[in-house]
Amino acid sequence: MPQLGLLHGRAWASLLGQLLRPPRAVCMGAVHSHSQVAEAVLMSQLKSHQEKSNFIIKTPKGTRDLSPQQMVVREKILDMVVSCFKRHGAKGLDTPAFELKEVLTEKYGEDSGLIYDLQDQGGELLSLRYDLTVPFARYLAMNKVKKMKRYHVGKVWRRESPTIVQGRYREFCQCDFDIAGQFDPMIPDAECLKIMCEILSGLQLGDFLVKVNDRRILDGMFAVCGVPESKFHAICSSIDKLDKMSWKDVRHEMVAKKGLAPEVADRIGDYVQCHGGVSLVEQMFQDPRLSQNKQALEGLGDLKLLFEYLTLLGIAEKISFDLSLARGLDYYTGVIYEAVLLPTPAQTEEEPLNVGSVAAGGRYDGLVGMFDPKGHKVPCVGLSIGVERIFSIVEQRMKTFGEKIRTTETQVFVASPQKNFLQERLKLIAELWDAGIKAELLYKNNPKLLTQLHYCENMGIPLVVIIGEQELKEGVVKLRSVASREEVAIKRENLVAEIQKRLSES
Amino acid sequence: MPQLGLLHGRAWASLLGQLLRPPRAVCMGAVHSHSQVAEAVLMSQLKSHQEKSNFIIKTPKGTRDLSPQQMVVREKILDMVVSCFKRHGAKGLDTPAFELKEVLTEKYGEDSGLIYDLQDQGGELLSLRYDLTVPFARYLAMNKVKKMKRYHVGKVWRRESPTIVQGRYREFCQCDFDIAGQFDPMIPDAECLKIMCEILSGLQLGDFLVKVNDRRILDGMFAVCGVPESKFHAICSSIDKLDKMSWKDVRHEMVAKKGLAPEVADRIGDYVQCHGGVSLVEQMFQDPRLSQNKQALEGLGDLKLLFEYLTLLGIAEKISFDLSLARGLDYYTGVIYEAVLLPTPAQTEEEPLNVGSVAAGGRYDGLVGMFDPKGHKVPCVGLSIGVERIFSIVEQRMKTFGEKIRTTETQVFVASPQKNFLQERLKLIAELWDAGIKAELLYKNNPKLLTQLHYCENMGIPLVVIIGEQELKEGVVKLRSVASREEVAIKRENLVAEIQKRLSES
Repeated sequence: MPQLGLLHGRAWASLLGQLLRPPRAVCMGAVHSHSQVAEAVLMSQLKSHQEKSNFIIKTPKGTRDLSPQQMVVREKILDMVVSCFKRHGAKGLDTPAFELKEVLTEKYGEDSGLIYDLQDQGGELLSLRYDLTVPFARYLAMNKVKKMKRYHVGKVWRRESPTIVQGRYREFCQCDFDIAGQFDPMIPDAECLKIMCEILSGLQLGDFLVKVNDRRILDGMFAVCGVPESKFHAICSSIDKLDKMSWKDVRHEMVAKKGLAPEVADRIGDYVQCHGGVSLVEQMFQDPRLSQNKQALEGLGDLKLLFEYLTLLGIAEKISFDLSLARGLDYYTGVIYEAVLLPTPAQTEEEPLNVGSVAAGGRYDGLVGMFDPKGHKVPCVGLSIGVERIFSIVEQRMKTFGEKIRTTETQVFVASPQKNFLQERLKLIAELWDAGIKAELLYKNNPKLLTQLHYCENMGIPLVVIIGEQELKEGVVKLRSVASREEVAIKRENLVAEIQKRLSES
Repeated sequence: MPQLGLLHGRAWASLLGQLLRPPRAVCMGAVHSHSQVAEAVLMSQLKSHQEKSNFIIKTPKGTRDLSPQQMVVREKILDMVVSCFKRHGAKGLDTPAFELKEVLTEKYGEDSGLIYDLQDQGGELLSLRYDLTVPFARYLAMNKVKKMKRYHVGKVWRRESPTIVQGRYREFCQCDFDIAGQFDPMIPDAECLKIMCEILSGLQLGDFLVKVNDRRILDGMFAVCGVPESKFHAICSSIDKLDKMSWKDVRHEMVAKKGLAPEVADRIGDYVQCHGGVSLVEQMFQDPRLSQNKQALEGLGDLKLLFEYLTLLGIAEKISFDLSLARGLDYYTGVIYEAVLLPTPAQTEEEPLNVGSVAAGGRYDGLVGMFDPKGHKVPCVGLSIGVERIFSIVEQRMKTFGEKIRTTETQVFVASPQKNFLQERLKLIAELWDAGIKAELLYKNNPKLLTQLHYCENMGIPLVVIIGEQELKEGVVKLRSVASREEVAIKRENLVAEIQKRLSES
């Protein structure tokens, strides 16, 4: 079969194009002789067979669809998160999925390689947004907004090696809350931490801890340990990996890959093992080396004030000052934080290390100024909830407990035990829809009553309205409770009111 | 100044990269002599000045941010649309923003050039989704789902020449409802039209009309008019432009650009001027040419049945059979529809032609089969609400009527008339937040009372809790109504209950 050989030589994409063309395209164009047409049909069948077996239908690497079950879980979690943001007076904002490429340039340090670029199809060079923070800063600068408390729920995209099991994807949803503006120190910062605690407590994900540090303390620490200033960002990125890698491996990266002197790395090692409450802040004030550094002292002073506010807000015991917390992103300038779920005693044995960050954020006072033609600064502080990780946890928990999720909200089903009643069913359901009642029927002319009742049980629909010849004659309908199987006859004109009454009681 | 000349020669993108690098980067790397450093600083300042004046900060062409005011309007409209979808028993679904490029290939006819491709950064070739229909079909085929009623609200992207004034963007939101599965004819199709009518009536956008046609009637019409089968898609695309172009221009396109014989074009012209109710369906059954075409007869038969169901659902008077309706997308196979707002008498004089489509859809029985390895078909019918157009209309109306929109939902403001009361304000507001009350305070140590009260008036916050030395001593707080300016003293322990009572009453 020479045709087959010919086919092998063609590019897969072009074959695919043919596969996806509607069948009628085969016979398009000029008139063929009978044998030519037959050959074309044969060719097409051969191609079709081969292409279809080659064509694997999937979502792009690192992405996924959310099924109706997952959507219900997601909606509940997002509602809870957004209602907390609104409780703290935030306004909504939305920005495009992509930005001018230059807007994202030089904002993400070592992670910049993970940005998705759009193809140059003529016109501007564009990239998919990598987070919601840089677009927010761009919005503030572009509109000369000096003060704003906003939330934003949206997808972001990062070309990471996806390890799906841990709930990390290349496309994922972020829920951000940020406070922009010049205010008295640490009040907005404390509110951000309060919001993180409210959300994590509200979602009942188990015990959690919020690690806090300050970029100025980190920079001060690097300086007093002897890190050259040119290596601050690179070493900061290494430190950021301490939640995924052991100190030994991070030290190796700093020394072997980033050219840090071993004794400098060891000095850093002494600091990054420190974590504790406000007493550790006091202790660091006394640290002979750190207390000599102006930046570090500023950071420590702010942390001390922050802890005072956190105590007033009732969340100080959830917060831990942790010198190993670095946060990879370039744009942070002050306090930084990251919430982690604490393992249950059972988990501690299984996977003693990383339980994963579920929320994070910090202060970024310079980012807006990078977009302003005159460099005018708008100080900002904010947080991002890692909802994908939270989705996985809640999903897993529901599976474990075998919870059944309703994926529709239908309240009433319209049924008939008799043939040729589609017309009456349609008239009836239109009345219900027009009254705002959530209702369904089967898209069949003559469905069996049992099939209709089974549908209600499977879908968890609580009420059934049944209409047949007898009811039609008497001007009534039967209203049936699916759970109790009780049926009562109700005057047609009272049906909507009766349904609304029953629904408000349940 | 030779440096300046040098700068002019550089690529703008590279300059921009430098602008966006943090200032400290200038002094990184090897040690310079004093004059070298000074020169570097000067260079940097010159660059800085020049680059900043070049750098125009904006959103990508055809996209926009949604401000808090716009977000409030959008949220209301989307809530209304989604609640209608849920009323009809739909489940939620989400798909990634991008798909494998091949998934979108050959689905959109002449519009395929408008698809955004992602840059090839190694790995798969990807494109941003162009609608929500093709991803839905891909989902069904991939998961072998044979039956599903789903809604999806999400952004789609099309590289169109944006005419912002008409509410057309390159990034826009779609709200889709689709019914997949093999059912008795025209019942799901009728429900889709019912949904469109419910939404358009519910949003109170003014009078509207839903044009209905059928792809089989169009194909039959093309056949009996003498259009060669190879030109069906191209001519269909031309007909689709009749809402934006006059018949004369469309005819010119068909004849001059698409090579149609003038007399064939004129025969089409006779048909596409026809529109009316169910009586036009009857009339077309009698049409000497059309009644000879099997496909056309099938389409007419289904339309007749559809009109019967639409009458039962109480919306027949909103529907017009219109032979000029074509819908550009390749994948439709049966009934198609499009809702247009009817101009008010005033508008008719100003812009007598296009008022714009606000919802559309149709039946696509072949799309899922294009993704299935064995070509198994899953018939589908659905609709898409053009919410961007609706946003513009509602926004415009609110501007006209001068309606003020609250962009936050804050219920209570926590204030103090005295200095050094930040601690008490923080303790108080934490109580409110923990009780689920939406509350704000000013991020200042010692704000003036007047400033605090003005903030409440500007933001529309209804209640103020005031705490001062006297109140603290007596264990009370003052609760003030912003509207009436009435103040009452309330025991601290009763505050939350009192606020909740007041909020439930209002």
